[in-house]
Amino acid sequence: MSKYPDSLERLIQELKKLPGIGRVSAERLAFHLLSQSDERISGLSQALLEVKEKIRLCEICFNYAEEEHCKICKDTARDRNILCVVSQPHEVLKLEKTSEFFGLYHVLGGLISPVNDISPSDLHIEELLFRLQNSEIKEVILALDPKVEGEATSMYLARQIRPLGTKTTQLAHGVPVGRDLEFADEITLGKALRGRVSI
Amino acid sequence: MSKYPDSLERLIQELKKLPGIGRVSAERLAFHLLSQSDERISGLSQALLEVKEKIRLCEICFNYAEEEHCKICKDTARDRNILCVVSQPHEVLKLEKTSEFFGLYHVLGGLISPVNDISPSDLHIEELLFRLQNSEIKEVILALDPKVEGEATSMYLARQIRPLGTKTTQLAHGVPVGRDLEFADEITLGKALRGRVSI
Repeated sequence: MSKYPDSLERLIQELKKLPGIGRVSAERLAFHLLSQSDERISGLSQALLEVKEKIRLCEICFNYAEEEHCKICKDTARDRNILCVVSQPHEVLKLEKTSEFFGLYHVLGGLISPVNDISPSDLHIEELLFRLQNSEIKEVILALDPKVEGEATSMYLARQIRPLGTKTTQLAHGVPVGRDLEFADEITLGKALRGRVSI
Repeated sequence: MSKYPDSLERLIQELKKLPGIGRVSAERLAFHLLSQSDERISGLSQALLEVKEKIRLCEICFNYAEEEHCKICKDTARDRNILCVVSQPHEVLKLEKTSEFFGLYHVLGGLISPVNDISPSDLHIEELLFRLQNSEIKEVILALDPKVEGEATSMYLARQIRPLGTKTTQLAHGVPVGRDLEFADEITLGKALRGRVSI
């Protein structure tokens, strides 16, 4: 029998499922939450439900959006001649923070990975090629993880894009090789954007 | 303008209010949560609401409970001759984990602190004295933080309990002095329980 009231134990179990949260941290968070006002708790609870309810993928670029199109696709001030391809939606925000890129994005939704059974048809590659054929995009920057799967996906994309005549570049290897893109700091990522090279 | 959709930004803000969670951790948690199933998210959201809805304080000892009386007060196997006084409900669970105490508890709800404007009447001291006068309790263990406020509260309680003739002890100073009780490990706390001394 747990020493905790059932509902408290349940909350601890739920919190323990979060990344980087162990049993002790989960207990500490639960006790902290218990000591908060009803308003504060329902604020967090509501925010959780709303985010799942409201967030969907932009129909153009597959970035997170609350409407048909994301904030970036709808922004008329963005440069529509240049497109940056990333693997996941949170990488868009990482690149936005560098303040070095003012074009549009395209989120693949993953990387080609035979090991994990992810083939090109599982990603938004067809939609990318369609965009390139039906828009004023003059350059595509491939900003994928500088690891095996990212490089392989970049190579695959470069081969697919070449016949369309769109200039294709990738991030300069200012990004430390062998690590996930999300761990790069803004300055390194900014330098990598400025020093991008043709492939 | 935040680069994040509004509902995502709101979730990040809510997560940032948790202890030990900064902006970067909050973003990471939010993205993790976004990638989870609807079921998983509503599980966490429900657990949060339920804990606030269901958890109340035991009418006898002021520990966390889901009914009138907490699991410990209802447990007929507990030793009703001995009572342990703690400041907060989560300290009950910390002491339970030592497996060295099988009596009952009484949660004060804080410590006497003139600086923070907490006087004896703000705590469940009257209820403690009433319990001692109307039960078979033969010993009271004061398990309060070994810091200024805890020591002062122990002294105050010892003075109040003395006329009732109940034996009063406090945790042995195996507990490292000058730190919060919740940071003590189970073994140290167990030793402190066994080596408790009369005051």
